[in-house]
Amino acid sequence: MRVANYCPVCGAPTVMQERFGRQRPVCSQCNHTIFFEPKVAVVIFVVEGDRVLLVERANDPAKGTWALPAGFVDSDEDPRDAAARETLEETGLTVEVTHLLDVLHRPDPQGLADLVIAYRARVTGGDLQAGDDAADARWFTRDVLPMIGFRTTEILLGRWPQDED
Amino acid sequence: MRVANYCPVCGAPTVMQERFGRQRPVCSQCNHTIFFEPKVAVVIFVVEGDRVLLVERANDPAKGTWALPAGFVDSDEDPRDAAARETLEETGLTVEVTHLLDVLHRPDPQGLADLVIAYRARVTGGDLQAGDDAADARWFTRDVLPMIGFRTTEILLGRWPQDED
Repeated sequence: MRVANYCPVCGAPTVMQERFGRQRPVCSQCNHTIFFEPKVAVVIFVVEGDRVLLVERANDPAKGTWALPAGFVDSDEDPRDAAARETLEETGLTVEVTHLLDVLHRPDPQGLADLVIAYRARVTGGDLQAGDDAADARWFTRDVLPMIGFRTTEILLGRWPQDED
Repeated sequence: MRVANYCPVCGAPTVMQERFGRQRPVCSQCNHTIFFEPKVAVVIFVVEGDRVLLVERANDPAKGTWALPAGFVDSDEDPRDAAARETLEETGLTVEVTHLLDVLHRPDPQGLADLVIAYRARVTGGDLQAGDDAADARWFTRDVLPMIGFRTTEILLGRWPQDED
Protein backbone atom coordinates (compact mmCIF):
# COMPACT_ATOMS: atom_id res chain seq x y z
CA MET A 1 0.00 0.00 0.00
CA ARG A 2 1.80 3.09 -1.25
CA VAL A 3 -1.09 5.55 -1.04
CA ALA A 4 -2.34 6.89 2.27
CA ASN A 5 -4.38 9.99 1.58
CA TYR A 6 -6.69 9.02 4.42
CA CYS A 7 -6.12 7.42 7.81
CA PRO A 8 -6.98 3.70 7.81
CA VAL A 9 -7.97 3.92 11.49
CA CYS A 10 -10.32 6.94 11.58
CA GLY A 11 -10.73 8.03 7.93
CA ALA A 12 -9.45 11.61 8.36
CA PRO A 13 -7.03 13.10 5.79
CA THR A 14 -3.33 12.54 6.35
CA VAL A 15 -0.46 15.03 6.18
CA MET A 16 3.21 14.32 5.55
CA GLN A 17 5.37 14.76 8.66
CA GLU A 18 8.82 13.74 9.85
CA ARG A 19 8.43 10.50 11.78
CA PHE A 20 11.12 7.91 12.57
CA GLY A 21 13.73 9.38 10.30
CA ARG A 22 11.72 10.30 7.22
CA GLN A 23 8.55 11.95 5.92
CA ARG A 24 5.57 9.66 6.48
CA PRO A 25 1.79 10.11 6.24
CA VAL A 26 0.35 11.05 9.65
CA CYS A 27 -3.34 11.36 10.47
CA SER A 28 -4.45 14.97 10.91
CA GLN A 29 -7.01 13.87 13.51
CA CYS A 30 -5.79 10.83 15.48
CA ASN A 31 -2.02 11.23 14.92
CA HIS A 32 -1.65 7.66 13.62
CA THR A 33 1.58 7.19 11.62
CA ILE A 34 1.33 5.15 8.43
CA PHE A 35 4.40 3.00 7.69
CA PHE A 36 4.67 1.65 4.18
CA GLU A 37 5.92 -1.93 4.47
CA PRO A 38 7.91 -3.76 1.80
CA LYS A 39 5.76 -5.95 -0.42
CA VAL A 40 7.26 -9.43 -0.08
CA ALA A 41 7.19 -12.25 -2.61
CA VAL A 42 8.60 -15.75 -2.60
CA VAL A 43 10.10 -17.50 -5.61
CA ILE A 44 10.72 -21.22 -5.64
CA PHE A 45 13.60 -22.94 -7.37
CA VAL A 46 12.55 -26.56 -7.85
CA VAL A 47 15.14 -28.74 -9.54
CA GLU A 48 15.14 -32.46 -10.29
CA GLY A 49 18.35 -33.71 -11.82
CA ASP A 50 19.15 -31.34 -14.69
CA ARG A 51 15.59 -29.98 -14.98
CA VAL A 52 14.02 -26.91 -13.43
CA LEU A 53 10.29 -26.29 -12.92
CA LEU A 54 8.94 -23.22 -14.73
CA VAL A 55 5.48 -21.80 -15.25
CA GLU A 56 4.06 -19.81 -18.15
CA ARG A 57 2.46 -16.58 -17.00
CA ALA A 58 -1.28 -16.49 -17.72
CA ASN A 59 -1.54 -12.79 -16.83
CA ASP A 60 0.44 -9.60 -16.98
CA PRO A 61 2.98 -8.62 -15.94
CA ALA A 62 5.00 -10.66 -18.45
CA LYS A 63 2.05 -12.67 -19.78
CA GLY A 64 3.15 -15.52 -22.05
CA THR A 65 6.69 -15.65 -20.74
CA TRP A 66 8.08 -18.21 -18.30
CA ALA A 67 9.24 -17.86 -14.74
CA LEU A 68 9.89 -19.73 -11.55
CA PRO A 69 6.75 -20.28 -9.46
CA ALA A 70 6.25 -17.22 -7.27
CA GLY A 71 3.73 -15.19 -5.35
CA PHE A 72 3.10 -12.73 -2.58
CA VAL A 73 3.46 -13.44 1.12
CA ASP A 74 0.55 -12.43 3.33
CA SER A 75 1.33 -10.48 6.49
CA ASP A 76 0.76 -13.45 8.80
CA GLU A 77 2.16 -16.17 6.55
CA ASP A 78 5.42 -18.06 7.01
CA PRO A 79 7.27 -17.43 3.73
CA ARG A 80 8.21 -21.13 3.52
CA ASP A 81 4.51 -21.99 3.68
CA ALA A 82 3.83 -19.32 1.04
CA ALA A 83 6.47 -20.93 -1.17
CA ALA A 84 4.85 -24.37 -0.88
CA ARG A 85 1.36 -22.90 -1.37
CA GLU A 86 2.32 -20.97 -4.51
CA THR A 87 4.10 -23.95 -6.05
CA LEU A 88 1.09 -26.16 -5.42
CA GLU A 89 -1.35 -23.58 -6.81
CA GLU A 90 0.66 -22.95 -9.96
CA THR A 91 2.03 -26.43 -10.72
CA GLY A 92 -0.07 -29.01 -8.85
CA LEU A 93 3.07 -30.31 -7.13
CA THR A 94 3.64 -30.49 -3.41
CA VAL A 95 7.15 -29.49 -2.39
CA GLU A 96 9.38 -29.41 0.65
CA VAL A 97 11.37 -26.22 1.00
CA THR A 98 14.93 -27.37 1.61
CA HIS A 99 16.80 -24.10 2.04
CA LEU A 100 16.96 -20.36 1.62
CA LEU A 101 18.84 -19.19 -1.46
CA ASP A 102 18.72 -15.39 -1.21
CA VAL A 103 16.69 -12.28 -0.52
CA LEU A 104 16.60 -10.01 -3.57
CA HIS A 105 15.71 -6.33 -3.45
CA ARG A 106 13.44 -5.19 -6.29
CA PRO A 107 14.89 -7.43 -9.01
CA ASP A 108 11.76 -6.89 -11.16
CA PRO A 109 10.40 -3.35 -11.37
CA GLN A 110 7.32 -4.71 -13.16
CA GLY A 111 6.89 -7.50 -10.62
CA LEU A 112 5.55 -5.26 -7.86
CA ALA A 113 7.45 -6.96 -5.02
CA ASP A 114 10.00 -4.97 -3.03
CA LEU A 115 11.64 -8.04 -1.57
CA VAL A 116 11.82 -11.49 -3.12
CA ILE A 117 12.75 -14.42 -0.88
CA ALA A 118 14.16 -17.25 -2.98
CA TYR A 119 13.91 -20.83 -1.75
CA ARG A 120 15.15 -24.13 -3.05
CA ALA A 121 12.58 -26.93 -2.85
CA ARG A 122 12.15 -30.56 -3.87
CA VAL A 123 9.02 -32.30 -5.08
CA THR A 124 7.28 -34.60 -2.61
CA GLY A 125 4.08 -35.41 -4.53
CA GLY A 126 1.23 -34.23 -6.71
CA ASP A 127 0.63 -34.25 -10.47
CA LEU A 128 2.07 -31.60 -12.74
CA GLN A 129 -0.81 -29.38 -13.84
CA ALA A 130 -0.85 -25.62 -14.31
CA GLY A 131 -3.25 -23.61 -12.17
CA ASP A 132 -3.94 -20.21 -10.62
CA ASP A 133 -2.13 -17.58 -12.69
CA ALA A 134 -0.03 -20.14 -14.57
CA ALA A 135 -1.13 -21.08 -18.12
CA ASP A 136 1.33 -23.95 -18.30
CA ALA A 137 3.86 -25.68 -16.04
CA ARG A 138 6.76 -27.75 -17.29
CA TRP A 139 10.22 -29.06 -16.56
CA PHE A 140 13.06 -27.59 -18.62
CA THR A 141 16.68 -28.55 -18.99
CA ARG A 142 19.32 -25.84 -18.79
CA ASP A 143 20.15 -26.01 -22.49
CA VAL A 144 16.57 -25.58 -23.73
CA LEU A 145 14.98 -22.81 -21.70
CA PRO A 146 11.88 -20.89 -22.84
CA MET A 147 11.54 -17.09 -22.93
CA ILE A 148 12.02 -15.86 -19.37
CA GLY A 149 9.86 -12.94 -18.21
CA PHE A 150 11.36 -12.00 -14.87
CA ARG A 151 14.78 -10.79 -13.86
CA THR A 152 14.46 -12.79 -10.62
CA THR A 153 14.21 -16.02 -12.60
CA GLU A 154 17.16 -15.01 -14.82
CA ILE A 155 19.30 -14.28 -11.76
CA LEU A 156 18.52 -17.60 -10.09
CA LEU A 157 18.90 -19.63 -13.29
CA GLY A 158 22.25 -17.89 -13.81
CA ARG A 159 23.51 -19.24 -10.50
CA TRP A 160 22.36 -22.77 -11.17
CA PRO A 161 23.89 -25.33 -10.64
CA GLN A 162 26.14 -23.62 -8.09
CA ASP A 163 23.17 -23.54 -5.73
CA GLU A 164 22.90 -27.33 -5.78
CA ASP A 165 22.73 -29.15 -2.47
CA MET B 1 -0.64 -1.63 9.21
CA ARG B 2 -3.18 -4.15 10.43
CA VAL B 3 -6.18 -1.84 10.65
CA ALA B 4 -8.03 -0.66 7.57
CA ASN B 5 -11.42 0.64 8.67
CA TYR B 6 -11.20 3.29 5.97
CA CYS B 7 -9.83 3.32 2.43
CA PRO B 8 -6.38 4.94 2.24
CA VAL B 9 -7.14 6.13 -1.31
CA CYS B 10 -10.57 7.79 -0.97
CA GLY B 11 -11.38 7.72 2.77
CA ALA B 12 -14.63 5.73 2.49
CA PRO B 13 -15.38 2.87 4.93
CA THR B 14 -14.11 -0.58 4.00
CA VAL B 15 -15.94 -3.90 4.10
CA MET B 16 -14.43 -7.39 4.35
CA GLN B 17 -14.70 -9.36 1.11
CA GLU B 18 -13.11 -12.42 -0.46
CA ARG B 19 -10.20 -11.21 -2.58
CA PHE B 20 -7.21 -13.21 -3.78
CA GLY B 21 -7.91 -16.26 -1.65
CA ARG B 22 -8.93 -14.71 1.66
CA GLN B 23 -11.06 -12.06 3.35
CA ARG B 24 -9.50 -8.63 2.88
CA PRO B 25 -10.69 -5.06 3.49
CA VAL B 26 -12.20 -3.62 0.30
CA CYS B 27 -13.33 -0.01 -0.17
CA SER B 28 -17.12 0.33 -0.25
CA GLN B 29 -16.81 3.24 -2.68
CA CYS B 30 -13.77 2.86 -4.97
CA ASN B 31 -13.35 -0.96 -4.73
CA HIS B 32 -9.67 -0.66 -3.72
CA THR B 33 -8.37 -3.84 -2.05
CA ILE B 34 -6.15 -3.41 0.99
CA PHE B 35 -3.35 -5.98 1.32
CA PHE B 36 -1.65 -6.21 4.69
CA GLU B 37 2.05 -6.64 4.04
CA PRO B 38 4.50 -8.40 6.37
CA LYS B 39 6.42 -6.01 8.60
CA VAL B 40 10.08 -6.72 7.86
CA ALA B 41 13.06 -6.25 10.16
CA VAL B 42 16.76 -6.90 9.74
CA VAL B 43 19.05 -8.24 12.45
CA ILE B 44 22.81 -8.05 12.14
CA PHE B 45 25.24 -10.63 13.44
CA VAL B 46 28.60 -8.89 13.73
CA VAL B 47 31.41 -11.09 15.01
CA GLU B 48 35.11 -10.36 15.46
CA GLY B 49 37.12 -13.37 16.57
CA ASP B 50 35.24 -14.86 19.52
CA ARG B 51 33.25 -11.71 20.26
CA VAL B 52 29.76 -10.68 19.10
CA LEU B 53 28.37 -7.14 19.01
CA LEU B 54 25.27 -6.62 21.18
CA VAL B 55 23.22 -3.59 22.14
CA GLU B 56 21.28 -2.86 25.32
CA ARG B 57 17.70 -1.89 24.58
CA ALA B 58 16.89 1.67 25.67
CA ASN B 59 13.16 1.22 25.08
CA ASP B 60 10.46 -1.38 25.28
CA PRO B 61 9.93 -4.01 24.07
CA ALA B 62 12.57 -5.75 26.20
CA LYS B 63 14.05 -2.54 27.66
CA GLY B 64 17.27 -3.18 29.59
CA THR B 65 18.00 -6.50 27.95
CA TRP B 66 20.54 -7.12 25.19
CA ALA B 67 20.10 -8.05 21.57
CA LEU B 68 21.76 -8.04 18.20
CA PRO B 69 21.45 -4.69 16.38
CA ALA B 70 18.16 -4.67 14.49
CA GLY B 71 15.48 -2.48 12.99
CA PHE B 72 12.70 -2.18 10.48
CA VAL B 73 13.12 -2.08 6.71
CA ASP B 74 11.33 0.71 4.88
CA SER B 75 9.28 -0.23 1.82
CA ASP B 76 11.84 1.15 -0.65
CA GLU B 77 14.99 0.18 1.25
CA ASP B 78 17.45 -2.57 0.33
CA PRO B 79 17.52 -4.76 3.45
CA ARG B 80 21.34 -4.91 3.29
CA ASP B 81 21.41 -1.11 3.43
CA ALA B 82 18.93 -1.21 6.31
CA ALA B 83 21.25 -3.62 8.13
CA ALA B 84 24.24 -1.29 7.73
CA ARG B 85 22.14 1.76 8.67
CA GLU B 86 20.75 0.18 11.84
CA THR B 87 24.16 -1.07 12.97
CA LEU B 88 25.65 2.40 12.48
CA GLU B 89 22.77 4.11 14.29
CA GLU B 90 22.86 1.76 17.26
CA THR B 91 26.60 1.10 17.62
CA GLY B 92 28.53 3.85 15.77
CA LEU B 93 30.26 1.20 13.66
CA THR B 94 30.19 0.96 9.89
CA VAL B 95 29.85 -2.58 8.62
CA GLU B 96 29.93 -4.52 5.41
CA VAL B 97 27.19 -7.11 5.09
CA THR B 98 28.98 -10.30 4.06
CA HIS B 99 26.12 -12.77 3.70
CA LEU B 100 22.56 -13.74 4.39
CA LEU B 101 22.07 -16.06 7.36
CA ASP B 102 18.33 -16.72 7.41
CA VAL B 103 14.82 -15.34 7.18
CA LEU B 104 12.88 -15.98 10.37
CA HIS B 105 9.10 -15.88 10.65
CA ARG B 106 7.80 -14.12 13.77
CA PRO B 107 10.52 -15.28 16.15
CA ASP B 108 9.57 -12.50 18.62
CA PRO B 109 5.85 -11.94 19.22
CA GLN B 110 6.74 -8.81 21.19
CA GLY B 111 9.12 -7.61 18.51
CA LEU B 112 6.41 -6.53 16.04
CA ALA B 113 8.20 -7.81 12.93
CA ASP B 114 6.57 -10.54 10.87
CA LEU B 115 9.77 -11.40 9.01
CA VAL B 116 13.32 -10.97 10.28
CA ILE B 117 16.13 -11.09 7.73
CA ALA B 118 19.39 -12.03 9.48
CA TYR B 119 22.71 -10.94 8.00
CA ARG B 120 26.30 -11.56 8.90
CA ALA B 121 28.50 -8.45 8.75
CA ARG B 122 32.04 -7.34 9.52
CA VAL B 123 33.23 -4.02 10.91
CA THR B 124 34.86 -1.65 8.45
CA GLY B 125 35.19 1.48 10.60
CA GLY B 126 33.67 3.85 13.13
CA ASP B 127 33.93 4.13 16.91
CA LEU B 128 31.86 2.00 19.23
CA GLN B 129 29.21 4.26 20.77
CA ALA B 130 25.58 3.45 21.52
CA GLY B 131 22.92 5.55 19.79
CA ASP B 132 19.31 5.62 18.59
CA ASP B 133 17.32 3.12 20.66
CA ALA B 134 20.44 1.48 22.14
CA ALA B 135 21.45 2.46 25.68
CA ASP B 136 24.78 0.66 25.40
CA ALA B 137 26.74 -1.25 22.77
CA ARG B 138 29.50 -3.75 23.58
CA TRP B 139 31.40 -6.79 22.42
CA PHE B 140 30.73 -10.03 24.30
CA THR B 141 32.44 -13.39 24.25
CA ARG B 142 30.30 -16.50 24.00
CA ASP B 143 30.98 -17.58 27.56
CA VAL B 144 29.97 -14.28 29.19
CA LEU B 145 26.76 -13.15 27.54
CA PRO B 146 24.37 -10.62 29.13
CA MET B 147 20.61 -11.09 29.54
CA ILE B 148 19.16 -11.55 26.04
CA GLY B 149 15.78 -9.96 25.33
CA PHE B 150 14.83 -11.37 21.96
CA ARG B 151 14.27 -14.87 20.70
CA THR B 152 15.83 -13.87 17.37
CA THR B 153 19.12 -13.10 19.11
CA GLU B 154 18.94 -16.37 21.09
CA ILE B 155 18.39 -18.36 17.90
CA LEU B 156 21.30 -16.77 16.07
CA LEU B 157 23.66 -16.97 19.06
CA GLY B 158 22.70 -20.64 19.39
CA ARG B 159 23.93 -21.32 15.86
CA TRP B 160 27.22 -19.51 16.36
CA PRO B 161 29.97 -20.41 15.49
CA GLN B 162 28.51 -22.77 12.86
CA ASP B 163 27.62 -19.69 10.83
CA GLU B 164 31.27 -18.65 10.60
CA ASP B 165 32.69 -17.83 7.18
